Amino acid sequence: MTAPIDFWFDYSSPYSYLLSERIDELAAQHGRTVRWRPILLGIVFRETGSAPLTQQFPAKAAYSRRDFARSARFLGLPYRHPDAFPVATQYAARVTLWLAANRPALTRPFGHACFRALFVDNRDISDLEVVTGLAGDLGVDRETVEAALRDPALKEELRTACSSALAAGVFGAPYVVIDGEPFFGADRLPQIERWLAEGSF
Amino acid sequence: MTAPIDFWFDYSSPYSYLLSERIDELAAQHGRTVRWRPILLGIVFRETGSAPLTQQFPAKAAYSRRDFARSARFLGLPYRHPDAFPVATQYAARVTLWLAANRPALTRPFGHACFRALFVDNRDISDLEVVTGLAGDLGVDRETVEAALRDPALKEELRTACSSALAAGVFGAPYVVIDGEPFFGADRLPQIERWLAEGSF
Repeated sequence: MTAPIDFWFDYSSPYSYLLSERIDELAAQHGRTVRWRPILLGIVFRETGSAPLTQQFPAKAAYSRRDFARSARFLGLPYRHPDAFPVATQYAARVTLWLAANRPALTRPFGHACFRALFVDNRDISDLEVVTGLAGDLGVDRETVEAALRDPALKEELRTACSSALAAGVFGAPYVVIDGEPFFGADRLPQIERWLAEGSF
Repeated sequence: MTAPIDFWFDYSSPYSYLLSERIDELAAQHGRTVRWRPILLGIVFRETGSAPLTQQFPAKAAYSRRDFARSARFLGLPYRHPDAFPVATQYAARVTLWLAANRPALTRPFGHACFRALFVDNRDISDLEVVTGLAGDLGVDRETVEAALRDPALKEELRTACSSALAAGVFGAPYVVIDGEPFFGADRLPQIERWLAEGSF
């Protein structure tokens, strides 16, 4: 029994969205499962002294905007750059952690719903109403979600997740780890595929 | 007659080396030529406030070292991380510009020789002796190269090349521009291939 592949991500990361649409199927083709591990890139960037791509040097920011959309087309995925970007994702991340512990079958559908709400439907997932609505679409009632979000233990769990990410070497997202081998960026999908097929290369 | 593809690079950039081994053949398959445009990333980074990957946050530096070698294996290319890294590349860049103007058929062989000297044979191409030796291997005598390197006009040409790169939006290397469409990084080779095949996507 092999360990799950770790998929570290922030819901506000365009390349995390792109990878999220491919990683589970790719893993399954090689008999592997994926552990979705939401983190907050703001906390990671504070440690590493980095910043979101669209807030870097103007030429790099402009290129990144263009590359997000082109990379989505390359992968055959819909993409619409959100009007609100980057957005705070702590509600979406915490609900994901809560689902993983309490309604594990809903973790992945909720994850896809959050990513697609932001990067396809231009919805502001920093808004609590939007997040509870997405959970509601999956049959989790608003009161349950709001009660979970008020629990200090859940906030602490997300903080711990960010610390674990930094300890694992994460400096950006998406960051995939397969049996100790790290892959940064959606553009490493071909290398991930080969690694899964060959065990190493 | 289509315009050449622009390939902006610094000889000290591992991903530029990787792309340099593939871009000409890929372009030729689609009836296109490539203009090799050496620049100095140090000048670009000064403008953009960036730094070489191996001088960034420790986790990112460590990942980059690992990814250079793995990406080379993925592409089937030899790679040995140089003991001296990054290195100053103004001699190699200036000789490349001089060859492009005076012995154009030698531009590409010299370019490959510089990249491979650094990233395969662990030679320090910041050393004038090494650079004149590589030109000598192609039949260009040392006195000719040294005279060219003393010419202020050649120094100015490299400065102008760096300014042109910044004006073209270059913020790192390799940076490939096809009919106005920019591609940053060796990992964009699959997108470059599709762009050449389809005209856009």
